[in-house]
Amino acid sequence: MRRSGGERKPREERWAELIEVATQVFYEKGYDGASLQDIADRLGMLKGSLYYYIQSKEDLLFDVISSVHRDGLAVIRARAELPGDPLQRLENVIVGHVEHTCRNLVPTAVFLHELSALPPDRRVEVLGNEHAYQGVFRGLIEAGQAEGLVRTDIDPRLAALSVLGSTNWVYRWFRPGGAFSADQIATELAGMAVRGIATPDALAARGV
Amino acid sequence: MRRSGGERKPREERWAELIEVATQVFYEKGYDGASLQDIADRLGMLKGSLYYYIQSKEDLLFDVISSVHRDGLAVIRARAELPGDPLQRLENVIVGHVEHTCRNLVPTAVFLHELSALPPDRRVEVLGNEHAYQGVFRGLIEAGQAEGLVRTDIDPRLAALSVLGSTNWVYRWFRPGGAFSADQIATELAGMAVRGIATPDALAARGV
Repeated sequence: MRRSGGERKPREERWAELIEVATQVFYEKGYDGASLQDIADRLGMLKGSLYYYIQSKEDLLFDVISSVHRDGLAVIRARAELPGDPLQRLENVIVGHVEHTCRNLVPTAVFLHELSALPPDRRVEVLGNEHAYQGVFRGLIEAGQAEGLVRTDIDPRLAALSVLGSTNWVYRWFRPGGAFSADQIATELAGMAVRGIATPDALAARGV
Repeated sequence: MRRSGGERKPREERWAELIEVATQVFYEKGYDGASLQDIADRLGMLKGSLYYYIQSKEDLLFDVISSVHRDGLAVIRARAELPGDPLQRLENVIVGHVEHTCRNLVPTAVFLHELSALPPDRRVEVLGNEHAYQGVFRGLIEAGQAEGLVRTDIDPRLAALSVLGSTNWVYRWFRPGGAFSADQIATELAGMAVRGIATPDALAARGV
Protein backbone atom coordinates (compact mmCIF):
# COMPACT_ATOMS: atom_id res chain seq x y z
CA MET A 1 0.00 0.00 0.00
CA ARG A 2 1.38 3.44 -0.88
CA ARG A 3 1.32 6.24 1.64
CA SER A 4 -0.24 9.40 0.36
CA GLY A 5 3.11 11.07 0.94
CA GLY A 6 4.88 13.66 3.08
CA GLU A 7 3.80 14.32 6.66
CA ARG A 8 0.17 13.50 6.04
CA LYS A 9 -0.93 10.26 7.55
CA PRO A 10 -3.17 8.05 5.48
CA ARG A 11 -6.83 8.18 6.31
CA GLU A 12 -7.04 4.74 7.88
CA GLU A 13 -4.14 5.47 10.22
CA ARG A 14 -5.74 8.74 11.28
CA TRP A 15 -9.00 6.89 11.83
CA ALA A 16 -7.35 4.30 14.07
CA GLU A 17 -5.78 7.11 16.11
CA LEU A 18 -9.08 8.91 16.33
CA ILE A 19 -10.82 5.81 17.66
CA GLU A 20 -8.06 5.15 20.16
CA VAL A 21 -8.20 8.70 21.49
CA ALA A 22 -12.02 8.75 21.55
CA THR A 23 -12.00 5.50 23.55
CA GLN A 24 -9.64 6.97 26.11
CA VAL A 25 -11.58 10.25 26.40
CA PHE A 26 -14.93 8.44 26.78
CA TYR A 27 -13.33 6.27 29.45
CA GLU A 28 -11.91 9.21 31.40
CA LYS A 29 -14.79 11.67 31.14
CA GLY A 30 -17.77 9.43 30.37
CA TYR A 31 -19.60 9.77 27.08
CA ASP A 32 -21.82 12.60 28.28
CA GLY A 33 -18.92 14.51 29.74
CA ALA A 34 -16.65 14.11 26.69
CA SER A 35 -16.80 16.61 23.83
CA LEU A 36 -15.53 16.46 20.26
CA GLN A 37 -13.40 19.44 21.27
CA ASP A 38 -11.66 17.28 23.92
CA ILE A 39 -10.94 14.64 21.31
CA ALA A 40 -9.72 17.12 18.71
CA ASP A 41 -7.47 18.80 21.30
CA ARG A 42 -5.86 15.54 22.22
CA LEU A 43 -5.22 14.71 18.56
CA GLY A 44 -3.88 18.18 17.86
CA MET A 45 -6.59 18.66 15.22
CA LEU A 46 -9.16 21.34 14.67
CA LYS A 47 -12.58 20.24 15.81
CA GLY A 48 -13.94 21.01 12.35
CA SER A 49 -11.53 18.48 10.81
CA LEU A 50 -13.20 15.68 12.76
CA TYR A 51 -16.21 16.06 10.51
CA TYR A 52 -14.09 14.70 7.69
CA TYR A 53 -14.30 11.36 9.53
CA ILE A 54 -17.58 11.40 11.42
CA GLN A 55 -20.91 13.18 11.55
CA SER A 56 -21.34 13.18 15.32
CA LYS A 57 -19.89 12.14 18.67
CA GLU A 58 -22.36 9.26 18.62
CA ASP A 59 -20.63 7.88 15.51
CA LEU A 60 -17.43 7.59 17.51
CA LEU A 61 -19.13 5.83 20.41
CA PHE A 62 -20.81 3.46 17.98
CA ASP A 63 -17.47 2.59 16.42
CA VAL A 64 -15.70 2.08 19.74
CA ILE A 65 -18.47 -0.14 21.05
CA SER A 66 -19.10 -2.11 17.90
CA SER A 67 -15.37 -2.77 17.33
CA VAL A 68 -14.70 -4.24 20.75
CA HIS A 69 -17.91 -6.25 20.60
CA ARG A 70 -17.22 -7.54 17.09
CA ASP A 71 -13.64 -8.51 17.90
CA GLY A 72 -14.62 -10.23 21.14
CA LEU A 73 -17.40 -12.09 19.41
CA ALA A 74 -15.01 -13.24 16.69
CA VAL A 75 -12.66 -14.58 19.37
CA ILE A 76 -15.34 -16.60 21.15
CA ARG A 77 -17.01 -17.85 17.98
CA ALA A 78 -13.70 -19.13 16.65
CA ARG A 79 -13.02 -20.91 19.95
CA ALA A 80 -16.53 -22.34 20.07
CA GLU A 81 -15.72 -24.20 16.86
CA LEU A 82 -12.42 -25.72 17.93
CA PRO A 83 -12.42 -29.50 18.36
CA GLY A 84 -13.69 -30.92 21.63
CA ASP A 85 -16.89 -31.71 23.48
CA PRO A 86 -19.20 -28.84 24.43
CA LEU A 87 -17.63 -28.47 27.89
CA GLN A 88 -14.13 -28.28 26.49
CA ARG A 89 -15.29 -25.77 23.93
CA LEU A 90 -17.04 -23.72 26.61
CA GLU A 91 -13.86 -23.71 28.65
CA ASN A 92 -11.94 -22.50 25.59
CA VAL A 93 -14.50 -19.80 24.93
CA ILE A 94 -14.30 -18.53 28.51
CA VAL A 95 -10.52 -18.41 28.39
CA GLY A 96 -10.67 -16.45 25.12
CA HIS A 97 -13.26 -14.04 26.46
CA VAL A 98 -11.31 -13.30 29.63
CA GLU A 99 -8.05 -12.82 27.75
CA HIS A 100 -9.77 -10.49 25.27
CA THR A 101 -11.22 -8.49 28.16
CA CYS A 102 -7.85 -8.21 29.89
CA ARG A 103 -6.19 -7.05 26.65
CA ASN A 104 -8.96 -4.51 25.99
CA LEU A 105 -9.81 -3.11 29.40
CA VAL A 106 -10.51 0.46 28.32
CA PRO A 107 -12.74 -0.26 25.29
CA THR A 108 -14.50 -2.97 27.32
CA ALA A 109 -15.23 -0.47 30.08
CA VAL A 110 -16.60 2.01 27.51
CA PHE A 111 -18.71 -0.77 25.98
CA LEU A 112 -20.15 -1.81 29.35
CA HIS A 113 -20.67 1.71 30.72
CA GLU A 114 -21.87 3.55 27.66
CA LEU A 115 -23.84 1.03 25.62
CA SER A 116 -27.04 2.56 26.97
CA ALA A 117 -26.01 5.96 25.56
CA LEU A 118 -26.57 4.59 22.05
CA PRO A 119 -30.10 4.86 20.66
CA PRO A 120 -32.00 1.55 20.68
CA ASP A 121 -31.57 0.82 16.95
CA ARG A 122 -27.80 1.18 17.09
CA ARG A 123 -27.69 -0.87 20.27
CA VAL A 124 -29.50 -3.68 18.45
CA GLU A 125 -27.08 -3.27 15.54
CA VAL A 126 -24.18 -3.91 17.93
CA LEU A 127 -25.63 -6.69 20.05
CA GLY A 128 -27.80 -8.48 17.53
CA ASN A 129 -31.39 -9.13 18.44
CA GLU A 130 -30.51 -12.33 20.16
CA HIS A 131 -27.60 -11.11 22.25
CA ALA A 132 -25.03 -12.89 20.16
CA TYR A 133 -22.45 -13.06 22.93
CA GLN A 134 -24.74 -14.69 25.43
CA GLY A 135 -25.94 -16.99 22.64
CA VAL A 136 -22.50 -18.57 22.18
CA PHE A 137 -22.29 -19.50 25.87
CA ARG A 138 -25.88 -20.65 26.00
CA GLY A 139 -25.54 -22.75 22.83
CA LEU A 140 -22.59 -24.67 24.25
CA ILE A 141 -24.37 -25.20 27.57
CA GLU A 142 -27.42 -26.57 25.76
CA ALA A 143 -25.22 -28.80 23.60
CA GLY A 144 -23.58 -30.03 26.80
CA GLN A 145 -26.96 -30.87 28.29
CA ALA A 146 -27.90 -32.82 25.15
CA GLU A 147 -24.72 -34.89 25.52
CA GLY A 148 -25.15 -35.50 29.25
CA LEU A 149 -22.16 -33.33 30.15
CA VAL A 150 -24.09 -30.45 31.72
CA ARG A 151 -26.61 -30.87 34.52
CA THR A 152 -30.21 -30.64 33.39
CA ASP A 153 -31.28 -28.94 36.62
CA ILE A 154 -29.68 -25.67 35.57
CA ASP A 155 -31.26 -23.20 33.19
CA PRO A 156 -28.91 -22.61 30.22
CA ARG A 157 -29.76 -18.93 30.06
CA LEU A 158 -29.12 -18.38 33.76
CA ALA A 159 -25.90 -20.35 33.52
CA ALA A 160 -24.78 -18.26 30.54
CA LEU A 161 -25.55 -15.05 32.43
CA SER A 162 -23.66 -16.34 35.46
CA VAL A 163 -20.57 -17.09 33.37
CA LEU A 164 -20.81 -13.75 31.57
CA GLY A 165 -21.08 -11.96 34.90
CA SER A 166 -18.10 -13.69 36.42
CA THR A 167 -15.97 -13.06 33.32
CA ASN A 168 -17.13 -9.56 32.35
CA TRP A 169 -16.57 -8.39 35.91
CA VAL A 170 -12.84 -8.90 35.34
CA TYR A 171 -12.71 -5.50 33.61
CA ARG A 172 -13.41 -3.89 37.01
CA TRP A 173 -10.57 -5.43 38.94
CA PHE A 174 -7.88 -6.74 36.56
CA ARG A 175 -4.75 -4.60 36.43
CA PRO A 176 -1.89 -5.49 34.09
CA GLY A 177 1.14 -6.34 36.21
CA GLY A 178 -1.08 -6.95 39.25
CA ALA A 179 -1.39 -10.01 41.48
CA PHE A 180 -2.86 -12.25 38.77
CA SER A 181 -1.94 -12.71 35.12
CA ALA A 182 -4.66 -12.68 32.47
CA ASP A 183 -3.78 -16.28 31.78
CA GLN A 184 -4.23 -17.36 35.41
CA ILE A 185 -7.54 -15.53 35.74
CA ALA A 186 -8.83 -17.01 32.50
CA THR A 187 -7.90 -20.55 33.48
CA GLU A 188 -9.31 -20.34 37.02
CA LEU A 189 -12.59 -18.69 36.02
CA ALA A 190 -13.08 -21.22 33.24
CA GLY A 191 -12.42 -24.10 35.61
CA MET A 192 -14.91 -22.82 38.19
CA ALA A 193 -17.57 -22.20 35.56
CA VAL A 194 -17.22 -25.66 34.03
CA ARG A 195 -17.26 -27.43 37.40
CA GLY A 196 -20.28 -25.38 38.39
CA ILE A 197 -22.43 -26.75 35.61
CA ALA A 198 -20.97 -30.17 34.71
CA THR A 199 -22.64 -33.46 35.60
CA PRO A 200 -20.84 -35.68 38.13
CA ASP A 201 -20.05 -38.14 35.31
CA ALA A 202 -18.53 -35.43 33.14
CA LEU A 203 -16.44 -34.23 36.08
CA ALA A 204 -15.25 -37.76 36.84
CA ALA A 205 -14.32 -38.26 33.16
CA ARG A 206 -12.33 -35.02 33.24
CA GLY A 207 -10.54 -36.22 36.36
CA VAL A 208 -11.24 -33.02 38.33
CA MET B 1 -43.19 9.20 67.95
CA ARG B 2 -45.11 12.45 67.58
CA ARG B 3 -45.31 14.16 64.24
CA SER B 4 -44.27 17.76 64.31
CA GLY B 5 -47.82 18.55 63.22
CA GLY B 6 -49.86 19.86 60.30
CA GLU B 7 -48.71 19.37 56.71
CA ARG B 8 -45.07 19.43 57.53
CA LYS B 9 -43.39 16.06 57.27
CA PRO B 10 -40.87 15.19 59.93
CA ARG B 11 -37.27 15.60 58.99
CA GLU B 12 -36.45 11.89 58.79
CA GLU B 13 -39.33 11.24 56.43
CA ARG B 14 -38.26 14.12 54.22
CA TRP B 15 -34.72 12.78 54.28
CA ALA B 16 -35.85 9.30 53.18
CA GLU B 17 -37.80 10.87 50.31
CA LEU B 18 -34.84 13.00 49.35
CA ILE B 19 -32.56 9.97 49.19
CA GLU B 20 -35.10 7.98 47.19
CA VAL B 21 -35.51 10.77 44.66
CA ALA B 22 -31.77 11.42 44.45
CA THR B 23 -31.17 7.71 43.79
CA GLN B 24 -33.67 7.74 40.96
CA VAL B 25 -32.29 10.95 39.42
CA PHE B 26 -28.68 9.72 39.63
CA TYR B 27 -29.81 6.49 37.98
CA GLU B 28 -31.63 8.21 35.13
CA LYS B 29 -29.21 11.04 34.40
CA GLY B 30 -25.95 9.77 35.82
CA TYR B 31 -24.29 11.59 38.71
CA ASP B 32 -22.52 14.11 36.46
CA GLY B 33 -25.67 14.84 34.51
CA ALA B 34 -27.92 15.22 37.56
CA SER B 35 -28.27 18.58 39.31
CA LEU B 36 -29.60 19.55 42.72
CA GLN B 37 -32.17 21.55 40.76
CA ASP B 38 -33.46 18.31 39.14
CA ILE B 39 -33.80 16.73 42.56
CA ALA B 40 -35.50 19.76 44.12
CA ASP B 41 -37.91 19.98 41.17
CA ARG B 42 -38.93 16.38 41.55
CA LEU B 43 -39.52 16.85 45.28
CA GLY B 44 -41.47 20.08 44.71
CA MET B 45 -38.95 21.92 46.88
CA LEU B 46 -36.88 25.00 46.33
CA LYS B 47 -33.29 24.14 45.58
CA GLY B 48 -32.19 26.34 48.47
CA SER B 49 -34.18 24.20 50.91
CA LEU B 50 -32.01 21.18 50.06
CA TYR B 51 -29.18 22.87 51.93
CA TYR B 52 -31.14 22.30 55.11
CA TYR B 53 -30.31 18.60 54.60
CA ILE B 54 -27.03 18.50 52.73
CA GLN B 55 -24.04 20.61 51.86
CA SER B 56 -23.49 19.30 48.32
CA LYS B 57 -24.65 16.88 45.63
CA GLU B 58 -21.75 14.69 46.66
CA ASP B 59 -23.31 14.27 50.12
CA LEU B 60 -26.36 12.75 48.47
CA LEU B 61 -24.30 10.35 46.36
CA PHE B 62 -22.32 9.36 49.42
CA ASP B 63 -25.51 8.58 51.32
CA VAL B 64 -27.07 6.59 48.45
CA ILE B 65 -23.94 4.55 47.97
CA SER B 66 -23.09 4.01 51.60
CA SER B 67 -26.68 2.99 52.48
CA VAL B 68 -26.99 0.28 49.87
CA HIS B 69 -23.50 -0.97 50.64
CA ARG B 70 -24.07 -0.97 54.42
CA ASP B 71 -27.42 -2.76 54.13
CA GLY B 72 -26.07 -5.36 51.70
CA LEU B 73 -23.07 -5.96 53.91
CA ALA B 74 -25.31 -6.40 56.95
CA VAL B 75 -27.32 -9.02 55.02
CA ILE B 76 -24.30 -11.06 54.02
CA ARG B 77 -22.54 -10.74 57.39
CA ALA B 78 -25.62 -11.99 59.19
CA ARG B 79 -25.89 -14.94 56.81
CA ALA B 80 -22.19 -15.73 57.11
CA GLU B 81 -22.79 -16.35 60.81
CA LEU B 82 -25.73 -18.70 60.48
CA PRO B 83 -25.07 -22.33 61.48
CA GLY B 84 -23.50 -24.61 58.89
CA ASP B 85 -20.16 -25.49 57.38
CA PRO B 86 -18.34 -22.81 55.37
CA LEU B 87 -19.81 -24.02 52.05
CA GLN B 88 -23.35 -23.92 53.41
CA ARG B 89 -22.71 -20.46 54.82
CA LEU B 90 -21.24 -19.29 51.52
CA GLU B 91 -24.31 -20.58 49.73
CA ASN B 92 -26.50 -18.66 52.18
CA VAL B 93 -24.45 -15.51 51.71
CA ILE B 94 -24.74 -15.71 47.93
CA VAL B 95 -28.50 -16.19 48.13
CA GLY B 96 -28.80 -13.17 50.42
CA HIS B 97 -26.59 -11.03 48.22
CA VAL B 98 -28.54 -11.85 45.05
CA GLU B 99 -31.88 -11.25 46.74
CA HIS B 100 -30.67 -7.92 48.13
CA THR B 101 -29.47 -6.91 44.66
CA CYS B 102 -32.78 -7.85 43.05
CA ARG B 103 -34.72 -5.88 45.68
CA ASN B 104 -32.44 -2.85 45.28
CA LEU B 105 -31.72 -2.68 41.56
CA VAL B 106 -31.66 1.10 41.25
CA PRO B 107 -29.44 1.93 44.24
CA THR B 108 -27.19 -1.01 43.31
CA ALA B 109 -26.81 0.39 39.80
CA VAL B 110 -25.94 3.82 41.23
CA PHE B 111 -23.45 2.20 43.60
CA LEU B 112 -21.76 0.24 40.83
CA HIS B 113 -21.77 3.04 38.23
CA GLU B 114 -20.99 6.06 40.38
CA LEU B 115 -18.70 4.83 43.12
CA SER B 116 -15.77 6.24 41.19
CA ALA B 117 -17.40 9.70 41.30
CA LEU B 118 -16.70 9.85 45.05
CA PRO B 119 -13.31 11.19 46.12
CA PRO B 120 -10.89 8.46 47.26
CA ASP B 121 -11.30 9.09 51.00
CA ARG B 122 -15.09 8.77 50.87
CA ARG B 123 -14.76 5.67 48.67
CA VAL B 124 -12.57 4.07 51.33
CA GLU B 125 -15.11 5.12 53.97
CA VAL B 126 -17.78 3.18 52.05
CA LEU B 127 -15.84 0.09 51.07
CA GLY B 128 -13.50 -0.26 54.00
CA ASN B 129 -9.82 -0.59 53.31
CA GLU B 130 -10.10 -4.31 52.92
CA HIS B 131 -13.08 -4.43 50.60
CA ALA B 132 -15.42 -5.70 53.26
CA TYR B 133 -17.85 -7.30 50.83
CA GLN B 134 -15.22 -9.33 49.05
CA GLY B 135 -13.73 -10.20 52.44
CA VAL B 136 -16.87 -12.05 53.56
CA PHE B 137 -16.80 -14.30 50.49
CA ARG B 138 -13.07 -14.80 50.68
CA GLY B 139 -13.15 -15.60 54.40
CA LEU B 140 -15.69 -18.37 53.89
CA ILE B 141 -13.75 -19.77 50.93
CA GLU B 142 -10.58 -19.86 53.03
CA ALA B 143 -12.43 -21.47 55.93
CA GLY B 144 -13.74 -24.04 53.44
CA GLN B 145 -10.21 -24.79 52.28
CA ALA B 146 -9.07 -25.26 55.87
CA GLU B 147 -11.84 -27.81 56.40
CA GLY B 148 -11.19 -29.69 53.14
CA LEU B 149 -14.47 -28.54 51.61
CA VAL B 150 -13.00 -26.15 49.03
CA ARG B 151 -10.35 -27.15 46.50
CA THR B 152 -6.88 -25.94 47.35
CA ASP B 153 -6.01 -25.38 43.66
CA ILE B 154 -8.16 -22.27 43.51
CA ASP B 155 -7.10 -18.87 44.76
CA PRO B 156 -9.61 -17.63 47.38
CA ARG B 157 -9.39 -14.05 46.15
CA LEU B 158 -10.00 -15.03 42.52
CA ALA B 159 -12.85 -17.28 43.56
CA ALA B 160 -14.41 -14.46 45.61
CA LEU B 161 -14.12 -12.09 42.64
CA SER B 162 -15.67 -14.70 40.37
CA VAL B 163 -18.66 -15.13 42.69
CA LEU B 164 -19.04 -11.37 43.12
CA GLY B 165 -18.97 -10.92 39.36
CA SER B 166 -21.56 -13.56 38.68
CA THR B 167 -23.87 -12.20 41.40
CA ASN B 168 -23.33 -8.44 40.98
CA TRP B 169 -23.99 -8.79 37.26
CA VAL B 170 -27.58 -9.66 38.09
CA TYR B 171 -28.34 -5.93 38.43
CA ARG B 172 -27.81 -5.60 34.67
CA TRP B 173 -30.30 -8.20 33.54
CA PHE B 174 -32.80 -8.97 36.31
CA ARG B 175 -36.24 -7.48 35.76
CA PRO B 176 -39.00 -7.91 38.35
CA GLY B 177 -41.77 -9.97 36.78
CA GLY B 178 -39.36 -11.28 34.12
CA ALA B 179 -38.49 -14.84 33.16
CA PHE B 180 -36.74 -15.65 36.45
CA SER B 181 -37.69 -14.88 40.05
CA ALA B 182 -35.09 -13.44 42.41
CA ASP B 183 -35.38 -16.62 44.41
CA GLN B 184 -34.66 -18.87 41.42
CA ILE B 185 -31.69 -16.76 40.32
CA ALA B 186 -30.27 -16.71 43.84
CA THR B 187 -30.56 -20.46 44.25
CA GLU B 188 -29.09 -21.34 40.86
CA LEU B 189 -26.17 -18.90 41.06
CA ALA B 190 -25.35 -20.12 44.58
CA GLY B 191 -25.44 -23.73 43.44
CA MET B 192 -23.13 -23.10 40.50
CA ALA B 193 -20.70 -21.12 42.63
CA VAL B 194 -20.50 -23.77 45.34
CA ARG B 195 -20.05 -26.63 42.87
CA GLY B 196 -17.38 -24.60 41.08
CA ILE B 197 -15.12 -24.48 44.10
CA ALA B 198 -16.03 -27.51 46.24
CA THR B 199 -13.81 -30.57 46.58
CA PRO B 200 -15.11 -33.83 45.10
CA ASP B 201 -15.57 -35.16 48.65
CA ALA B 202 -17.61 -32.16 49.72
CA LEU B 203 -19.77 -32.49 46.62
CA ALA B 204 -20.32 -36.18 47.26
CA ALA B 205 -21.26 -35.46 50.88
CA ARG B 206 -23.77 -32.86 49.69
CA GLY B 207 -25.22 -35.38 47.25
CA VAL B 208 -25.01 -33.09 44.25
